[in-house]
Amino acid sequence: MGVQENQAQVAVQEEEEKGKDAERARWYTDTIQQTELADYSPVKGCMVIRPYGYALWENLQKSLDQMIKDTGHQNAYFPLFIPESFLQKEKEHVEGFAPECAVVTHGGGKKLEEPLIVRPTSETIINHMFAKWVQSWRDLPLLINQWANVVRWEMRTRLFLRTTEFLWQEGHTAHATAEEAEQEARTMLEVYRDLAENWLALPVLTGQKTDNERFRGAVRTYCIEALMRDGKALQAGTSHFLGQNFARAFNIQFQSQAGPLEFAWQTSWGVSTRLIGAIVMGHGDEKGLVLPPKLAPIQVVIVPIYKTDEEKALVLTRCRELLSQLKPHVRAHLDDRDNYTPGFKFNHWEQKGVPLRLNVGPKDVASDVVEIARRDLTFDKEKNYGKTRGVSQSGLAQTVTELLAQVQQNMFDRALDFRKESTRALDSYDDFKKVLDEGGGFIEAHWCRNGDCELSIKEETKATIRLMPFDSQPAPGKCIRCSGASDSRVVFARAY
Amino acid sequence: MGVQENQAQVAVQEEEEKGKDAERARWYTDTIQQTELADYSPVKGCMVIRPYGYALWENLQKSLDQMIKDTGHQNAYFPLFIPESFLQKEKEHVEGFAPECAVVTHGGGKKLEEPLIVRPTSETIINHMFAKWVQSWRDLPLLINQWANVVRWEMRTRLFLRTTEFLWQEGHTAHATAEEAEQEARTMLEVYRDLAENWLALPVLTGQKTDNERFRGAVRTYCIEALMRDGKALQAGTSHFLGQNFARAFNIQFQSQAGPLEFAWQTSWGVSTRLIGAIVMGHGDEKGLVLPPKLAPIQVVIVPIYKTDEEKALVLTRCRELLSQLKPHVRAHLDDRDNYTPGFKFNHWEQKGVPLRLNVGPKDVASDVVEIARRDLTFDKEKNYGKTRGVSQSGLAQTVTELLAQVQQNMFDRALDFRKESTRALDSYDDFKKVLDEGGGFIEAHWCRNGDCELSIKEETKATIRLMPFDSQPAPGKCIRCSGASDSRVVFARAY
Repeated sequence: MGVQENQAQVAVQEEEEKGKDAERARWYTDTIQQTELADYSPVKGCMVIRPYGYALWENLQKSLDQMIKDTGHQNAYFPLFIPESFLQKEKEHVEGFAPECAVVTHGGGKKLEEPLIVRPTSETIINHMFAKWVQSWRDLPLLINQWANVVRWEMRTRLFLRTTEFLWQEGHTAHATAEEAEQEARTMLEVYRDLAENWLALPVLTGQKTDNERFRGAVRTYCIEALMRDGKALQAGTSHFLGQNFARAFNIQFQSQAGPLEFAWQTSWGVSTRLIGAIVMGHGDEKGLVLPPKLAPIQVVIVPIYKTDEEKALVLTRCRELLSQLKPHVRAHLDDRDNYTPGFKFNHWEQKGVPLRLNVGPKDVASDVVEIARRDLTFDKEKNYGKTRGVSQSGLAQTVTELLAQVQQNMFDRALDFRKESTRALDSYDDFKKVLDEGGGFIEAHWCRNGDCELSIKEETKATIRLMPFDSQPAPGKCIRCSGASDSRVVFARAY
Repeated sequence: MGVQENQAQVAVQEEEEKGKDAERARWYTDTIQQTELADYSPVKGCMVIRPYGYALWENLQKSLDQMIKDTGHQNAYFPLFIPESFLQKEKEHVEGFAPECAVVTHGGGKKLEEPLIVRPTSETIINHMFAKWVQSWRDLPLLINQWANVVRWEMRTRLFLRTTEFLWQEGHTAHATAEEAEQEARTMLEVYRDLAENWLALPVLTGQKTDNERFRGAVRTYCIEALMRDGKALQAGTSHFLGQNFARAFNIQFQSQAGPLEFAWQTSWGVSTRLIGAIVMGHGDEKGLVLPPKLAPIQVVIVPIYKTDEEKALVLTRCRELLSQLKPHVRAHLDDRDNYTPGFKFNHWEQKGVPLRLNVGPKDVASDVVEIARRDLTFDKEKNYGKTRGVSQSGLAQTVTELLAQVQQNMFDRALDFRKESTRALDSYDDFKKVLDEGGGFIEAHWCRNGDCELSIKEETKATIRLMPFDSQPAPGKCIRCSGASDSRVVFARAY
């Protein structure tokens, strides 16, 4: 994203922190700190990802890495530093990124001849190498991914959602034809949709960014957009068709099968630790985190309940048996701390968003059963907070595995219902502004395709065009602001 | 390592590149580039780790990460940038690292109030956070590991072995007692020994560094040292007992079980992408890489051999069957490129160090056999370059799995034999210098325990004390240089 978006962003956050969203913003940062997902660091805009948050990231990373490899890509690693002159080679790219950069001016006790930029994204340095590696059509497609840290100097930051340093993966590919590169950009967007919907349990819209919102240096930017529970949109991943912009800037030429030298066609695509923020904001409730089972660091926590020493011995022995029974199948944890009450532990693990909790007391041991509480059903008070009593201990691993799949599905369904309820097709600019001020959500509206009109809407309402959806139905209408002609609706929202 | 060592290092490399080792140095960089493990980057001292090299690192990382978790540690992530004032809090630490630092002076288009250091190691920023998290004995031990990139400005660099930016893991722990921290430092050194010997197939010496060679800020530095095939030593991993140095500098205090506030006892430990260099230099031969099967990105390559189109169809069909047979068990690859001869492919995969190669021709198909060539036995000309003809295709996966285990063991045995042959107990300084000039290796010699004498030896011979071995037998003797009293031998070598 460019500086323009950042500045609008600052405005949104400033207003929100004075206004009605202040509570939600506090909930967000408090929850992240209290559940030990992350902590503030002494370095402006940089965060510390604590073990519980990092384990969540590792699970996400492992799933995505496999998908990236299954689609034919290989991981590699490129330098953290980029010579300043490299960034300047693609005109639009440098305009977008230069104002956000951290600059190394001294190394080894001396002033450097040429300052080095700490990578805000790696198109320039990677494409410099591609130019060396790509000679012939036989070297294509070149399908590379990198897991790395990147730095973008941010004026206002928020844990996970917008930090000066963040972790991400960035894919960079080169192809012989425009069609192949376009296909690649769409394939990787589909991988991101799969990741968001089937792992994070967050339904996403897919589509194309407007010219004002696209990646600086790209021809077209595709994106997935999720809706957070406070009615704000979150860009959860982007995939760019770069055309030949970087190939021309870095001279990536190959001898085509037909003979002549041609410039390569390229893509780049990335998702980041921002996705952890999406999980927090997309599923959390007043009790804290609600983590999707497929990514939760702990999927099942066992809480022993006892009063006497005799009961303790009995119950803990059984709990340890259950733990060994579960461990080969799910990520299970036994909370055998002696200095906390069961009630404290219930709250503790609920706040941390653990999908399932097994309560085991002396009576459960006697009758060979356990009680299972589902975190995702704590919303549903009629269902007694999602507790199922008297689950047989034999075959527990299977019961738990099935329940985890149900929780995963239920979380997705619930988020999808919420998005449906929070998506409105509007035709009046007054309604548009009113809906934004009263809860937000996605607004499907007509737009004249004029970038200046888009910017005026942004200035007047703080809403941006999140995307032009792939599945948008052709339907003539009038621009929500200027009444100019439009042939299909686009999706607006205020966004993180 | 500190600046002092770097400067000695530069001297060693400069001489070597003029002298007899020039060929070996060229072999090293040529092999790494030709096998596409890595490439030079346009950023001084930084390298690009290409997919083949990164896959090797990923395999190593995966093994080590599991060992780190199995010993009770959790991964986390701390900021890339460290405020300059933090580095200065531990006196010896800043003296060791400040001259090697890359400094960010500008961010977001403005000059920063306080410059930021790109982490050369993370003791300071991590211990700042530990001070916040550790309050009581119940918070201990705190066992954290981080996978990250770090930057140390190097005057002369060498792919993998010494680069300005490198990838590593750094463990940081805090404990209630000195004994526990000492135990932790030794446990992690043992993990590194296990990794080096059982995964990299490189035998290592274990022991303690001298005061001159220890980590700046540590009380004691333990290390594993491997011997490369050119007779030079390579420090392959270090584990530090930090005492209370950083705890005092960053005020990490906890309420002890007995009541009073106490400073925590700490360790840190790390290994890096330098280990890839160790694999190259520790096992490679005139044909190129020899990769240990447990870490090799490709464990078995299948090369089809055919002349006619009919043969091609027959052989490729069988090769694909064999590939699917092997894939669930080992990392197998079929080289079905049509524009290269089998001979070219043999050389190609031998240079890339693939442990096993299956040759499949029309006659092999007819008689249901394959020919298997072992990369590790190419040294043994009497064994016909390690080929085994007529291996039955049924049960191939088992044969291959067994052979891979044999290759792994043979590589370790061979490296151990080499180290034994290259280790000499010497008592004359003339012999000491002669051995160093004629092939190097480890030299067990007496030393007076005087740091100045150690530095003089370094100046006069470019050899350093690699370690004071844990298993050194008490035996009185005289210092190899000054004839001062010594009660046991230490290990000297020229080193990377």
